[in-house]
Amino acid sequence: MLNPADAAFLESLANALPEGVISPTEPRYLEDPRRRVTGQAGGIARPRTVEDVSVILAACHAARVGVIPYGGGTGLVWAQVQPTGPAPLVLSLERMRAVRAVHPSENVMVVEAGATLAEVQAAAEEAGRLFPLSLASQGSAQIGGNLATNAGGVNVLRYGNTRDLCLGLEAVLPDGTIWHGLKRLRKDNTGYDLRNLLIGAEGTLGIITAASLKLSPIPAAMGTALMVVPSPAAALDLLALVQARLGGLVSAFELISGVGLSFLAEKMPELRQPFAQVPEWMVLLEVGLPDGLDPDAALTGLFEAAAEAGLVLDGLIAQSHAQRDDFWSVRENIPEANRRIGAISSHDISLPLGEVAGFIAEGAPALATLGDFRINCFGHLGDGNLHYNLFPKAGETREQHENSREAIKTMVHDMVHARGGSVSAEHGIGRLKVDDLEKYGDPAKLAAMRAIKLALDPKGIMNPGAVLRAAP
Amino acid sequence: MLNPADAAFLESLANALPEGVISPTEPRYLEDPRRRVTGQAGGIARPRTVEDVSVILAACHAARVGVIPYGGGTGLVWAQVQPTGPAPLVLSLERMRAVRAVHPSENVMVVEAGATLAEVQAAAEEAGRLFPLSLASQGSAQIGGNLATNAGGVNVLRYGNTRDLCLGLEAVLPDGTIWHGLKRLRKDNTGYDLRNLLIGAEGTLGIITAASLKLSPIPAAMGTALMVVPSPAAALDLLALVQARLGGLVSAFELISGVGLSFLAEKMPELRQPFAQVPEWMVLLEVGLPDGLDPDAALTGLFEAAAEAGLVLDGLIAQSHAQRDDFWSVRENIPEANRRIGAISSHDISLPLGEVAGFIAEGAPALATLGDFRINCFGHLGDGNLHYNLFPKAGETREQHENSREAIKTMVHDMVHARGGSVSAEHGIGRLKVDDLEKYGDPAKLAAMRAIKLALDPKGIMNPGAVLRAAP
Repeated sequence: MLNPADAAFLESLANALPEGVISPTEPRYLEDPRRRVTGQAGGIARPRTVEDVSVILAACHAARVGVIPYGGGTGLVWAQVQPTGPAPLVLSLERMRAVRAVHPSENVMVVEAGATLAEVQAAAEEAGRLFPLSLASQGSAQIGGNLATNAGGVNVLRYGNTRDLCLGLEAVLPDGTIWHGLKRLRKDNTGYDLRNLLIGAEGTLGIITAASLKLSPIPAAMGTALMVVPSPAAALDLLALVQARLGGLVSAFELISGVGLSFLAEKMPELRQPFAQVPEWMVLLEVGLPDGLDPDAALTGLFEAAAEAGLVLDGLIAQSHAQRDDFWSVRENIPEANRRIGAISSHDISLPLGEVAGFIAEGAPALATLGDFRINCFGHLGDGNLHYNLFPKAGETREQHENSREAIKTMVHDMVHARGGSVSAEHGIGRLKVDDLEKYGDPAKLAAMRAIKLALDPKGIMNPGAVLRAAP
Repeated sequence: MLNPADAAFLESLANALPEGVISPTEPRYLEDPRRRVTGQAGGIARPRTVEDVSVILAACHAARVGVIPYGGGTGLVWAQVQPTGPAPLVLSLERMRAVRAVHPSENVMVVEAGATLAEVQAAAEEAGRLFPLSLASQGSAQIGGNLATNAGGVNVLRYGNTRDLCLGLEAVLPDGTIWHGLKRLRKDNTGYDLRNLLIGAEGTLGIITAASLKLSPIPAAMGTALMVVPSPAAALDLLALVQARLGGLVSAFELISGVGLSFLAEKMPELRQPFAQVPEWMVLLEVGLPDGLDPDAALTGLFEAAAEAGLVLDGLIAQSHAQRDDFWSVRENIPEANRRIGAISSHDISLPLGEVAGFIAEGAPALATLGDFRINCFGHLGDGNLHYNLFPKAGETREQHENSREAIKTMVHDMVHARGGSVSAEHGIGRLKVDDLEKYGDPAKLAAMRAIKLALDPKGIMNPGAVLRAAP
């Protein structure tokens, strides 16, 4: 059983740390972006150095006080908010945001965990390099949180998840010991992969304080297109076609549904719709090409071949930076339009590519047995990652369907699981999906996870109740 | 303390398994390819199914009998041979070599651990896809061993290590439970990364029985060139130049030294030397290009730009498949020529790219204080991974320098460690480098590794003494 971060504990911890590291709780650390739950905390720790973090964790370990790691607060699965239980200490990395080093000739940079993703991207660009991780919340999401959740986003197809962009970590383990693992190596087979164990563990095995990150050359030219496709199956054939023609140069392949476009038209009419008639399905695709390949020619060639094969019905190729931004703003505003409509139930799922079309075809009629919904199915089709969100029909509210939420979620997740998919593609487990992990996770893997958690955090202080159910 | 795999244990295990799974020891399972150590075993298990493996591990767990996983037997750090201690059971995956499924449209295949790397490559090619892992021993090395050691090879620069090519695993954990984790997903954030924990653990945390692997499109055209460079520093500038021009399309960037070429001339005179005068340093580089880019033009353009910048002195661009094979045979025969000369001490090291030239410049004079050696420094320069091997001068034998081995190794590893490098880039720790890991490894990481080992394999039966020192 854990102890609360009470006044005596906080005072003693504050005395062991530099001035101002420990402060009273503020509401902004207790909010979930979707406003479904509210956290609680005994106090806030805002360390300035890895040594501060070490002192904090050692004290929490000794006193059995829970620690909630807090990055940008943008997580969608409640990993950063603990609504019940003994009041924990919230540990925010916001003051550790330095870019410690950039090595352009190595395509490496070393940053502290509290830097926002946008700051990391900007530092890379300043050095003439690309840090390719890109997602909607990049202005506030911190790189430490991206690592802790193995964030995905729109460029995974070419550059991988956050996991694939990290070469080394500095982290504080649950007993306060510091792991100095900021290597800048592409190959290093010296023991177990502690780096990837901490990445994606959502702060339950330690606190990532800094990372060495992989950079990439900036492609000589970008090409961006919107293509109307007759069906999700055709979109997948288009994906195969563009990959056959342009190998590993496709960075984004996003599915957008007519439902999503109609939500935009309804809630954000100021946004220019790309096509006069709202298509049922379209794809936003982007390629980054080296010198010698012209994006306009490459995408025109692709469009012609795809049209001939019946895979595309209409298309637009961005002719300027501004037009590229317009295309992306359609994609990037869909979550906001969704929010304004008000989802009944949202799902972050992934499927083997060969199962995507079957799932989409199966999903709508199956869910219609539970009620009359609008389904906005969109997302990172190139990775098999769909955001599959259900909304009330026009004129109704989400509150009217509150009683169906659980049945909807179960039906979607059962269908995904039966097809070999994942019920959390890129958002993680947090506290929201602990039941799902127990239900769909492999029992041997779950047992191994529990054994690892107990071995590295025997008192269970690190983000208690996230990913794995807290010990009673 | 472990028990030996004695006659009674083997008989009881054989009775629990189908006919022929358990058999007496054969010498071929006890050999180290460099013939420095000899293993021992109570018997050999050659399971046909994952269920067989489960029965074997459960029995060894119950009886506290050590298990040595055996793949192709090509490992260079003694992970597959246990010279001392209670006689273990050797577990060979050679009968589990099926290609279970190929999904070309998903760029995924599912194979059993005992398939050789060459068989995996061939199955991918048959499906019109590339499995890019490539290394000298691919004819006998098994994919399960490649995964267990996170093998590297010549295409890491573009496609990553074995770790990066794996989407999911089927494995048997030390107590015999089966983890069914053969996912075909590009994104799956459901709990701790058990996959990457088993990959690179060298069989000390469980037995990988099958894997789902990432395939790639086959590039439309390959371009291969040999370029003579004035120095390793110039080679690194050439790397930066080709990456700036051809982004992520460079698959191989191998450094070859004049010493290596002279070894080839001495021991394999039938091999055609590429240049009339043996250069001091040269680079073998390969690019895989999409439709629309001509490899000859791209490499000619690169050569001209590099020559103008003083980075290359001479060069050859392969004009045929046969010539490409010739270029590669120079690179690939260097280890055999080394073997025939007889190395005093071989090192598989990696460095941050920015430290490579400094290390090479520092190494030779420092090592000269220990004796008069020939240094063959070659390898995967694009990854900062060098094979840095010392040989006696002409007319002397390695045996005359046996007493210097330890001092040489220590000096090389100290220099590498001081520059933030790794003393095992791609070969792993095995039993050979346990001391090095204890000496150079981060103490917090080592403590975490020991805790994980104890949690998942509390009796210490899995490859005892590999990676981590066996409990006394």
